[in-house]
Amino acid sequence: MKNNLLKIWKNDLPVINTWLSLPNSFTAEAFGKMGWDSITIDMQHGQNDFNSCISMLQGLNSSNSVPMVRVPWNEPGIIMRMLDLGVMGIIAPMINTKNDCEKFISHCYYPPIGQRSFGPMRAQIVYGTDYYNNANNNILSFAMIETQEAVENLDEILSVANLTGIYVGPADMSSSYGLKPKFDVKEEPIFSNIKLIANKAKEYGKIAGIHNGSTRYAKEMIGLGYKLVTISSDFRSMIAHAQKIIDEMKENSSTNTKSDSY
Amino acid sequence: MKNNLLKIWKNDLPVINTWLSLPNSFTAEAFGKMGWDSITIDMQHGQNDFNSCISMLQGLNSSNSVPMVRVPWNEPGIIMRMLDLGVMGIIAPMINTKNDCEKFISHCYYPPIGQRSFGPMRAQIVYGTDYYNNANNNILSFAMIETQEAVENLDEILSVANLTGIYVGPADMSSSYGLKPKFDVKEEPIFSNIKLIANKAKEYGKIAGIHNGSTRYAKEMIGLGYKLVTISSDFRSMIAHAQKIIDEMKENSSTNTKSDSY
Amino acid sequence: MKNNLLKIWKNDLPVINTWLSLPNSFTAEAFGKMGWDSITIDMQHGQNDFNSCISMLQGLNSSNSVPMVRVPWNEPGIIMRMLDLGVMGIIAPMINTKNDCEKFISHCYYPPIGQRSFGPMRAQIVYGTDYYNNANNNILSFAMIETQEAVENLDEILSVANLTGIYVGPADMSSSYGLKPKFDVKEEPIFSNIKLIANKAKEYGKIAGIHNGSTRYAKEMIGLGYKLVTISSDFRSMIAHAQKIIDEMKENSSTNTKSDSY
Amino acid sequence: MKNNLLKIWKNDLPVINTWLSLPNSFTAEAFGKMGWDSITIDMQHGQNDFNSCISMLQGLNSSNSVPMVRVPWNEPGIIMRMLDLGVMGIIAPMINTKNDCEKFISHCYYPPIGQRSFGPMRAQIVYGTDYYNNANNNILSFAMIETQEAVENLDEILSVANLTGIYVGPADMSSSYGLKPKFDVKEEPIFSNIKLIANKAKEYGKIAGIHNGSTRYAKEMIGLGYKLVTISSDFRSMIAHAQKIIDEMKENSSTNTKSDSY
Amino acid sequence: MKNNLLKIWKNDLPVINTWLSLPNSFTAEAFGKMGWDSITIDMQHGQNDFNSCISMLQGLNSSNSVPMVRVPWNEPGIIMRMLDLGVMGIIAPMINTKNDCEKFISHCYYPPIGQRSFGPMRAQIVYGTDYYNNANNNILSFAMIETQEAVENLDEILSVANLTGIYVGPADMSSSYGLKPKFDVKEEPIFSNIKLIANKAKEYGKIAGIHNGSTRYAKEMIGLGYKLVTISSDFRSMIAHAQKIIDEMKENSSTNTKSDSY
Amino acid sequence: MKNNLLKIWKNDLPVINTWLSLPNSFTAEAFGKMGWDSITIDMQHGQNDFNSCISMLQGLNSSNSVPMVRVPWNEPGIIMRMLDLGVMGIIAPMINTKNDCEKFISHCYYPPIGQRSFGPMRAQIVYGTDYYNNANNNILSFAMIETQEAVENLDEILSVANLTGIYVGPADMSSSYGLKPKFDVKEEPIFSNIKLIANKAKEYGKIAGIHNGSTRYAKEMIGLGYKLVTISSDFRSMIAHAQKIIDEMKENSSTNTKSDSY
Repeated sequence: MKNNLLKIWKNDLPVINTWLSLPNSFTAEAFGKMGWDSITIDMQHGQNDFNSCISMLQGLNSSNSVPMVRVPWNEPGIIMRMLDLGVMGIIAPMINTKNDCEKFISHCYYPPIGQRSFGPMRAQIVYGTDYYNNANNNILSFAMIETQEAVENLDEILSVANLTGIYVGPADMSSSYGLKPKFDVKEEPIFSNIKLIANKAKEYGKIAGIHNGSTRYAKEMIGLGYKLVTISSDFRSMIAHAQKIIDEMKENSSTNTKSDSY
Repeated sequence: MKNNLLKIWKNDLPVINTWLSLPNSFTAEAFGKMGWDSITIDMQHGQNDFNSCISMLQGLNSSNSVPMVRVPWNEPGIIMRMLDLGVMGIIAPMINTKNDCEKFISHCYYPPIGQRSFGPMRAQIVYGTDYYNNANNNILSFAMIETQEAVENLDEILSVANLTGIYVGPADMSSSYGLKPKFDVKEEPIFSNIKLIANKAKEYGKIAGIHNGSTRYAKEMIGLGYKLVTISSDFRSMIAHAQKIIDEMKENSSTNTKSDSY
Repeated sequence: MKNNLLKIWKNDLPVINTWLSLPNSFTAEAFGKMGWDSITIDMQHGQNDFNSCISMLQGLNSSNSVPMVRVPWNEPGIIMRMLDLGVMGIIAPMINTKNDCEKFISHCYYPPIGQRSFGPMRAQIVYGTDYYNNANNNILSFAMIETQEAVENLDEILSVANLTGIYVGPADMSSSYGLKPKFDVKEEPIFSNIKLIANKAKEYGKIAGIHNGSTRYAKEMIGLGYKLVTISSDFRSMIAHAQKIIDEMKENSSTNTKSDSY
Repeated sequence: MKNNLLKIWKNDLPVINTWLSLPNSFTAEAFGKMGWDSITIDMQHGQNDFNSCISMLQGLNSSNSVPMVRVPWNEPGIIMRMLDLGVMGIIAPMINTKNDCEKFISHCYYPPIGQRSFGPMRAQIVYGTDYYNNANNNILSFAMIETQEAVENLDEILSVANLTGIYVGPADMSSSYGLKPKFDVKEEPIFSNIKLIANKAKEYGKIAGIHNGSTRYAKEMIGLGYKLVTISSDFRSMIAHAQKIIDEMKENSSTNTKSDSY
Repeated sequence: MKNNLLKIWKNDLPVINTWLSLPNSFTAEAFGKMGWDSITIDMQHGQNDFNSCISMLQGLNSSNSVPMVRVPWNEPGIIMRMLDLGVMGIIAPMINTKNDCEKFISHCYYPPIGQRSFGPMRAQIVYGTDYYNNANNNILSFAMIETQEAVENLDEILSVANLTGIYVGPADMSSSYGLKPKFDVKEEPIFSNIKLIANKAKEYGKIAGIHNGSTRYAKEMIGLGYKLVTISSDFRSMIAHAQKIIDEMKENSSTNTKSDSY
Repeated sequence: MKNNLLKIWKNDLPVINTWLSLPNSFTAEAFGKMGWDSITIDMQHGQNDFNSCISMLQGLNSSNSVPMVRVPWNEPGIIMRMLDLGVMGIIAPMINTKNDCEKFISHCYYPPIGQRSFGPMRAQIVYGTDYYNNANNNILSFAMIETQEAVENLDEILSVANLTGIYVGPADMSSSYGLKPKFDVKEEPIFSNIKLIANKAKEYGKIAGIHNGSTRYAKEMIGLGYKLVTISSDFRSMIAHAQKIIDEMKENSSTNTKSDSY
């Protein structure tokens, strides 16, 4: 049992991550064959709950992508239950203070680091009976930095021991600064924050992650030092592609035969 | 209550249809806003069952797209239950003989046309208390022509009264003739069959439909006289688009910034 | 293990039955406390499938009401699976001929009467390990008489051995004769059929059952000799009552304080 | 996008609300056609969870009734997830102090009012891409006043900015004062509290709401100044009506033909 | 893609099979780690339906056990849907005649052998894009011999081309001959039939399979030439073991410390 | 309404409890027939959520075993919802301080003891309309003692009024002291803690409970004064038994006929 993302980072390479918003184990399985370094099930703004995650993680079982989850909130019950299911990383929304972050770490790790309760029913089946010994070294913890308050507390948050990294939520950060929420932000002070966070993370020996709306922006972020970049999602991919097809058919539905989407 | 597809065909225009393979009411709702003339839930090769169809049809409730369903088999129980839920059209697989087709029609329509049982719980809520009077004039019935046997019985099948149309399954038809199953077939004798079917359908006053893998081919089919063309699906759209993104990121994950997919 | 409905009929009393259309085990449990002689889960026009029936039958476990089911169609798979779950009676729709009825009986009973397959997982837990010995004497089978064809074949259907009774579907029978489908029919020839069926059933030693829309009509049917009368359903009760409340509030929402619905 | 309840209140009219306790999207859809001003899904004492709410809200999609939800507790995860699904109002139980209420408001609204996280997947599909701009002006927030402590802190709670209103839970308030919990309370000091709350709410420019067991009491409450009155529920309607039918049949099951319930 | 059971039989070894009656993907996953040659999901007397099988098969994805299914009935819709999900073998109940068996084979295989419809959504993801070419050579088909009629038609059934084997249902066969249904039968004429079937299967080059209640009997069957032996199930294992524990505790709950079950 | 466990303890006898980890109402029903004094649904490390618990509790309805639940965390929403469903006892994990314990008690009981909200939808159907009057005297509350911190605060926790008892989690307690987590611990200081806790509980008039891995250890615990002993679980029983069968078959699959497991 060795979390493959740790190997990627050891080689100083970026992790390419995607997002599953839809509670469907079959689409999870299909995503698992595509080549993503990691796949994150979204329980905050996506439609997943504990129950749907069981089979989604099973769908990812024969995949090389590392399964992670964004939990709906920094709450011990759901974080520990998801770890019991075998997820290898937790992204927690709205970590605004050092205290928030310390609680988060406490939920993610077994003693002596934290207070995670023992009972990894599925994790032991998947990773073997020595799971307990390996869990603390392999579970990843990402604190979302997505408010003005979090930016102000950045050093304190980054100084929390055993935190793997921080993860920028650009839409909420924009909203927090009074801007319209969106991805791929270039507006100030968000863009400066994004650069600052990459640098600070490096300084504290943490991984910097960020949500992106396009491959172009994701690659730019990698250039800035981000080591975990998320692009698109199951739902966004589906909608973008299907809309393109119907638009193409409706433009001129009987004569145009040039384009060829499928 | 007036099935909008009937209006489109009255104007001699083609109906642009898509396919929902995933049992998710939220993606159904999103597809309902895109502009498709009709949306068909696939219960044969897709993952839908009776239960998932209830909420998917509700997701399509505020849409202008007409809801149809492909049933898993020409079986009275499931056809009548789906009609009770308010679907406006049934596509039945593997209709190979006149007898198959007559049974199919019998399941789709109330007396005196057929033997559909009365109890349209949801259909009455959606379409009003006069649903019984309007159902027979608005429900669409499509028999899938997808085997050599069906092609041989084409005239007999087309002669069945109250059948709305026939729907070509090019993959199964290829398989039936000993060819590799696929969409957008140009190989013979499949392509000749496809042309024949369009012409025969017209001759008998029926609608011809066909499954397509690309917009280009779908437009060619419209040119041949097809009045119901299906392109892609929720699942295919999702996979095609997401695969493109990860491929783009993995090609050259740190330097290439030209492409911009999302 | 002794089916309580058999005791009621032995005393020549009518069985008062209701209908569950909604897949909810909690409402099933609440209905189980009301005093119905039997409760029938509707899988044909209701929203139940095999899966929802498991917990609904469990909800009825501590009830004195006998659990029955109307299956979606006269199909061996679903009939045998429902019996395995512990239902004590099957109502099969659209039994139009002697052959239909013989097949139906074959699905309901173990050899030597029929060909029911052995594997009563839940039935054995509920009724004990001697379930196999008692099943054939306690399972009830009702063939729905709801078409002109069935009325014409009435004697033949009633002559089928081991059939418990017949059950009139007045809405479909109306539809079959070209009348608008509804309950509580007084129109001819439906009303004459209803009287004929009661008399014929008695002649053949079978139980006559019928679906009713009101208590008044149900009582009239009991007067005609019907021994199984169904009134209303979970869904109909809910809608009727809630509509009355909102109508009362909206009539004159601020001044009228006479009525008192809840 | 304009919350219709705001229009009703602008005209100084009361909002007539009902309660959905059962996790069923089909009954939700049927309730949506009845004429209620708003329909509230109950996640506290009802049987709904996040997953069942998705399709229930879709069932309400073509309705004129405004969808609201009572959350199980004043917890940010579930409040934000329900808002993402498109509910237009949140009723939070057990708001006993100003601090409770301020946290509640923080969960309901985007910055700068609160800290709601951005990601309204379904809300944007239903209400359009300008949802973010309109949400804070249209989302309703109701704090339940249902303990002695809350009554004592009434002025402080009402003084919280952006709170839409307060909602009286008469059963819990009775329980809190040592009385048997019930609706339509006339006992003191509960009834005095109810009058006090209506007056105080008006003084602070807030909407007063209350749960009722009968139309008579609801109308009395409207007379006292309540602008949001809830009457009955899906489950209560179903049970009341079905019990009446079986009682009527069992009274005298073979002779009485006067009553006529259905 | 090579069905591992074919390799085992090539080496003239018996396949050890178990049975999953409970619709739970997590227990499926745990069974997949135990060492069974094959694992069969039971849709006839077990509680599985199409929907639960999706995630159960995913739970078996990282297992070396070959996934099979017993379908509820010899019906084309469900057989083809299960094959699309990636099961590698179908056991069909109640195959009593040559005609039954020919229909069964027609549902299991693509043309030219049968009429299976093309659309292996999950099978292609799991087994690769050449699934169509390999399916007919790898899918296993087992006809259940479990009635007196089937025994009488044994030669005719065994002569059906492309049938992989036959599978004895000893409980139903007992019931069919007027005996109490059970496993591990030694009573005549059942035991003679069991010997006959093994010999006849060998003669026709087919695999003989049988359901067993104990390891002892299963080993005896292997001695008779059976090449597919099923022992116990998820549910039976659970119940047997838990009952033993509570019996041990209740015998003498405070003093006995000799036994040590867990 | 009288909680049977209270009677057992009145007779100074131990309660034999088991654990349900799997969300399946049918296995719950089967466990309900075995003879356990109480059956606890595990929502922390098991796979149950609110929704699955509804039907599991219905499966236990005709059982003599008292239904309890271990909640995922000491959170008011889920504790109150489970009590509304009719569970008769709550086991709360990770109660480390007096403050934790007081909050826990506040969630479990109606005023004046606690702040439980009124709305026992299912509990009233199961236990009758006087449920409110009886609940506080019959609901059991168990605080899990499973960390070093909790052991240090043992007296304070035990001094909380209305707490029924404490429940030792030996795996987590081991983990908290830097030992490998397991059941049936004999290592120090855990074993001394276990003895201390039994004695202290008696001193404060509370029930002591503990989780066990074997009947032998459970009996030893009863000898030490434990009055609530849990042994095994649905999942553990299933796995242990099935593994034994396949191991037996694989040892020597064709010749050994001595053992006889089923």
